[in-house]
Amino acid sequence: MGKRLAIAGVTGAVGQEFLQILDQRDFAFDSIKMLASKRSAGKKVTFKGKEYTIEELTEDSFGDVDIALFSCGGSRTKEFGPAAVKAGAVVVDNSSAYRMDPEVPLVVPEINAEAMKQHKGIIANPNCSTIIAIVPVWPLHKANPVKRMVVSTYQAASGAGMAAMRELEQQARQVLNGEEVTCDALKYQLAFNCYNHDSQTAPNGYNAEEMKMVNETRKIFDCPDIGISATCVRIPTLRAHCESINLEFESPITPDEVRELLSTAPGVTVMDDPENNRHPMPTDASGKDDVFVGRIRQDESVPDNCGINIWVAGDQIRKGAALNAVQIAEKLL
Amino acid sequence: MGKRLAIAGVTGAVGQEFLQILDQRDFAFDSIKMLASKRSAGKKVTFKGKEYTIEELTEDSFGDVDIALFSCGGSRTKEFGPAAVKAGAVVVDNSSAYRMDPEVPLVVPEINAEAMKQHKGIIANPNCSTIIAIVPVWPLHKANPVKRMVVSTYQAASGAGMAAMRELEQQARQVLNGEEVTCDALKYQLAFNCYNHDSQTAPNGYNAEEMKMVNETRKIFDCPDIGISATCVRIPTLRAHCESINLEFESPITPDEVRELLSTAPGVTVMDDPENNRHPMPTDASGKDDVFVGRIRQDESVPDNCGINIWVAGDQIRKGAALNAVQIAEKLL
Repeated sequence: MGKRLAIAGVTGAVGQEFLQILDQRDFAFDSIKMLASKRSAGKKVTFKGKEYTIEELTEDSFGDVDIALFSCGGSRTKEFGPAAVKAGAVVVDNSSAYRMDPEVPLVVPEINAEAMKQHKGIIANPNCSTIIAIVPVWPLHKANPVKRMVVSTYQAASGAGMAAMRELEQQARQVLNGEEVTCDALKYQLAFNCYNHDSQTAPNGYNAEEMKMVNETRKIFDCPDIGISATCVRIPTLRAHCESINLEFESPITPDEVRELLSTAPGVTVMDDPENNRHPMPTDASGKDDVFVGRIRQDESVPDNCGINIWVAGDQIRKGAALNAVQIAEKLL
Repeated sequence: MGKRLAIAGVTGAVGQEFLQILDQRDFAFDSIKMLASKRSAGKKVTFKGKEYTIEELTEDSFGDVDIALFSCGGSRTKEFGPAAVKAGAVVVDNSSAYRMDPEVPLVVPEINAEAMKQHKGIIANPNCSTIIAIVPVWPLHKANPVKRMVVSTYQAASGAGMAAMRELEQQARQVLNGEEVTCDALKYQLAFNCYNHDSQTAPNGYNAEEMKMVNETRKIFDCPDIGISATCVRIPTLRAHCESINLEFESPITPDEVRELLSTAPGVTVMDDPENNRHPMPTDASGKDDVFVGRIRQDESVPDNCGINIWVAGDQIRKGAALNAVQIAEKLL
């Protein structure tokens, strides 16, 4: 006996990944509604061998729904999320709309699943670059509190959606053919280039992606004092984010202790082979559930052996978005 | 009246750039010898409208040479550099062979041109990622000593040579065509991917590129105590490196002070437009002399306003290698 599901934003990169992950994990459900914008209504989508007709996402979509997985952008979530809750559904939302709402739990199941208990109909999924950073940082933080994190990201095109992934490929073709590069889904040329995240910049100079890393980590860790400094950058990769993470701990810690802690951490795979220069790459993480961690080494510029550098790679669409939301839904069952 | 020049390694990416830069800067010379490995000897190269025949680099190449610009790898520099010095030439070497030799000045002309005076025939050019980081950090360090730098790099294929640049393009074509990706000049797939620098890893876990950043910066700044923690990463760009640099200063400093200091710093262009999300990209820096700096902002995780984040982009072949060497040669005149 399962639940009645709905997917809002089923045609997007994350929406499509919801379907794959529900299938792969054999998520038990009685019914599933495929919802998207008016533009996509009437189109077909196949799931577990059965064809579904996409319906338009409206306030009336949720009368017969227990769990609604939302990935349709912040403004549409604000428009339709409350209606879904009112109709009795629990919304697991991938957008930033409700993440910092004190009434809404912001959850990474490996870290703070218990926060879900307080939900009032909406549970928020953190931002991709936040999730991928903190899944491996959390088990370290629990053992030895992290005082400060300096993070530089290497983010894939998928963070800007499926159209951006296709545009990156198109741009690469254009560069290779000596043609002019076109930018619609991407703000600038990303092929053979990189640029700082093009989300809105706050008066302090940090863009929204960077402030998500700061504010969401503090909320999820329930640690408002942790120091976090982020630089978020898009690079020409397709669907896995990498991050260079510098950690300062309260007490001394060694690379071997970090390896030990991470070797049993849920959702983490250690891939750390300095002798052969084999460390996590986007191609390793793509399509995988775990966050991969390598380059585990002492930061000799932090006194008393309290500093550690790590390098992580995680699938942006999967653990960075759809998988984390499905894991939340599984906990709801 | 000019000098008699030689270029050792003229067929490489940096060797070719030597020629372009000597031409663009109208470097005064009486003669120029084009030297390369036996494999390239006899081939022709055109410079300032005149055709030259490439000669094999040997111990006897330097009898009639005043300044030899070397970019032919560490082992060949060790083999032929001393012979050039013995023959009376001053060697400006782009390899790592002599950089940490206490007898050899390691020079970025904007920073420590006076160190050249002590040379005994060889002057070393720093590593590309070091130069691009420290050209903008030096004027800040002079005004307010930097206690600690945390650097994450976004390095272009050109750092692995011309063959790597062509291979990156070939790999991109292979990925786009669904073909298997081949790796000869590059250690791994770089197209639509990234990987930590594949130089040899020291027992402390840092690769050679990262230790260059630490040791070379300390030598050039004449500051053996500065804390430096680097993570060096290759991304699929062609010829400009970017770096995310987190700086901790001895005393408080504001982003406006940084902007002010950098606005008059030699070799630096400030490109910092948060409102329009316009910051330095590899495509901005490619083919340019200056290191571009943007994302200048306070690091709120460092107490007392002593922390600053910056983002830099610089041409790896140009300021990262050939231009810096030619600037050294200009100072020799």
